[in-house]
Amino acid sequence: VDFPAVGVVGGGQLARMMAPAAIGLGVRLRVLAREATDSAAQVVPDVEVGDERDLDALRRFAKGCDVLTFDHEHVPTEHLRLLQAEGVVVRPGPDALVHAQDKSVMRARLTQLAVPCPRWAVVSGIDEIRGFGDDVGWPIVLKTPRGGYDGKGVRLVESAEDAASWLESLGPGASLLAEERVRFDRELAVLVARSPHGQAAVYPVVETVQVDGICREVLAPAAISEEHAVSAQSIALRIAEGLGVTGVFAVEMFDTAGGVVVNELAMRPHNSGHWTIEGARTSQFEQHLRAVLDLPLGETSMTAPHVAMSNVLGGEIADMYDGYLHCMAHDPGVHLHMYGKVVRPGRKVGHVTTVGEDAGDVRARARHAAAFLRGDSDGTAE
Amino acid sequence: VDFPAVGVVGGGQLARMMAPAAIGLGVRLRVLAREATDSAAQVVPDVEVGDERDLDALRRFAKGCDVLTFDHEHVPTEHLRLLQAEGVVVRPGPDALVHAQDKSVMRARLTQLAVPCPRWAVVSGIDEIRGFGDDVGWPIVLKTPRGGYDGKGVRLVESAEDAASWLESLGPGASLLAEERVRFDRELAVLVARSPHGQAAVYPVVETVQVDGICREVLAPAAISEEHAVSAQSIALRIAEGLGVTGVFAVEMFDTAGGVVVNELAMRPHNSGHWTIEGARTSQFEQHLRAVLDLPLGETSMTAPHVAMSNVLGGEIADMYDGYLHCMAHDPGVHLHMYGKVVRPGRKVGHVTTVGEDAGDVRARARHAAAFLRGDSDGTAE
Repeated sequence: VDFPAVGVVGGGQLARMMAPAAIGLGVRLRVLAREATDSAAQVVPDVEVGDERDLDALRRFAKGCDVLTFDHEHVPTEHLRLLQAEGVVVRPGPDALVHAQDKSVMRARLTQLAVPCPRWAVVSGIDEIRGFGDDVGWPIVLKTPRGGYDGKGVRLVESAEDAASWLESLGPGASLLAEERVRFDRELAVLVARSPHGQAAVYPVVETVQVDGICREVLAPAAISEEHAVSAQSIALRIAEGLGVTGVFAVEMFDTAGGVVVNELAMRPHNSGHWTIEGARTSQFEQHLRAVLDLPLGETSMTAPHVAMSNVLGGEIADMYDGYLHCMAHDPGVHLHMYGKVVRPGRKVGHVTTVGEDAGDVRARARHAAAFLRGDSDGTAE
Repeated sequence: VDFPAVGVVGGGQLARMMAPAAIGLGVRLRVLAREATDSAAQVVPDVEVGDERDLDALRRFAKGCDVLTFDHEHVPTEHLRLLQAEGVVVRPGPDALVHAQDKSVMRARLTQLAVPCPRWAVVSGIDEIRGFGDDVGWPIVLKTPRGGYDGKGVRLVESAEDAASWLESLGPGASLLAEERVRFDRELAVLVARSPHGQAAVYPVVETVQVDGICREVLAPAAISEEHAVSAQSIALRIAEGLGVTGVFAVEMFDTAGGVVVNELAMRPHNSGHWTIEGARTSQFEQHLRAVLDLPLGETSMTAPHVAMSNVLGGEIADMYDGYLHCMAHDPGVHLHMYGKVVRPGRKVGHVTTVGEDAGDVRARARHAAAFLRGDSDGTAE
């Protein structure tokens, strides 16, 4: 039983969903969680409770791991550089990870790599914001370079004045990333895995449906032409290579009349890849473990012609067990994934996946199940 | 987070493989393991170390569980009856479980239910053995009614004299189950799940390939006619109903010229059902948890036309990591399941599953991968 140990920094649902993959592979999973009640800490025996911003906590945790990887991007880059210098194997490494941590760094590097991006600028005052907006056209998108997720840290602003109070609240000297607002037909995501020795595997392109900046549904494969899909995959593979990513890597894209434009990056398993647990021959969670361990990567083909994933957001009802029971009774083919989280309105507390022959049918079933779970008993609410 | 807790008595690979299912379902899994290093105890946080033959240990363990279920059949029936009387929910209950614990009880009950069995008798002396053998024809099969598994506790004997020393070693008054030796074309297994309120679900019939009394391969579906398969499934459903089984239940059968004949029963997830993890829409492990929690059962259809499972038996090489790496590199579509067990020659330490369009191809791939893992680098050895 000499199999390696993978340490995951962060105890959220991504670390939780790595656990089944680790059990199958026979690799030991360790988790550094903020709280002993975190989603992953509930299901993994080998948990350390600590703050990932505390270098000593990270260092202690890393001691028992053959490789360190992540559930989220909130670990200070400088801590990771120190650990790496001390001999800890960090995957993805800090030089790659910084592109998922800092959106300004990401834009600069993608532009260097000639990857299609929205027009962008780093702005640090009201005049620069006005200049950028007048140049690319209003409204524009403003983002905090670090720390945003699920629509947080992102604003659509109609004018420089509109941005003034936010900018002020960030304190003097703060800079923002300003981006052109991209008009798109749909949003796409491409999942890639890349291992240290350079093997890469790409999953089918999916469509993501966002509501209020939060992913609600993922449809695999996206209803786009083969040529279009290959072009999106090539861009994702080019970025993974260019940034030296190791592990699973997600690229969110806007699909526009002029081609795809890269929106965001994530260097870890991603919500847009949850469908792979049942929908692909190798789940993104197994693939991530294989990639960070430099094991050969698994097959990425789909297990059925169509797969739909619907996030389960908390509703008004705290106890989901009734909805859960109804959901199973109504559709014995729905795959449920509960994250062990306390229900709060709008919080992602689970997801459901359906697979089948017909795109419309799998989508309707997944939506219905997610609605049931949050307590919409007619299963139709969005 | 008010989801129920399922307690599993036994810390083997079956309990281990329930863990990924429990994580997805959001139900809490507790394990009573003999040792803290047991296969399941390595991957489940909530483990009690204790002996399942110790009533107090069982009682303590049961306190934290909404339902008690099993990784193996070695819990004394009388302990379970006591626990049940004290209000513990035991599934399958002792009245059902005894049929999987005691082969003589099983034969008597199946005969009552008019289920096709080999001719049998409970024998307790050399003269009775001779009488039975002379009646049904030599050789005959002798089994210890309790405690056998993987070919242990089972002997093929050519004559009464052949049985004498074994019978003697069991002590005075010992009885054995004598069975006619059945000539069969192949061995089949049928997996059923049944919930307390009586819902039942049956999986496609599989062929099992046994070598020296140990299951080596499982092929799904079995290459038999639809009519034949339905008849085998009906028998399994009839037994599940007749015995009042709750949970997943496996029936091993001989396929003979005259129809199927029941060989053994198991009242828990079973080696013949490991293929369902990737090969069926609902794995036997998820199905077992749903059944014992009286949740609606999941879909049992296959995810591909053909699925093969090959057990990984320990070979001469203790460290399997090299073979593991080769295995992934050679076939990115193989699904590996390692049990975290110390390798000993002949010990089941994992299994591999392949899915695909062609029966011969998936079988060859699974065999090859299992051979690789045990250290046969040409991947051809049996």
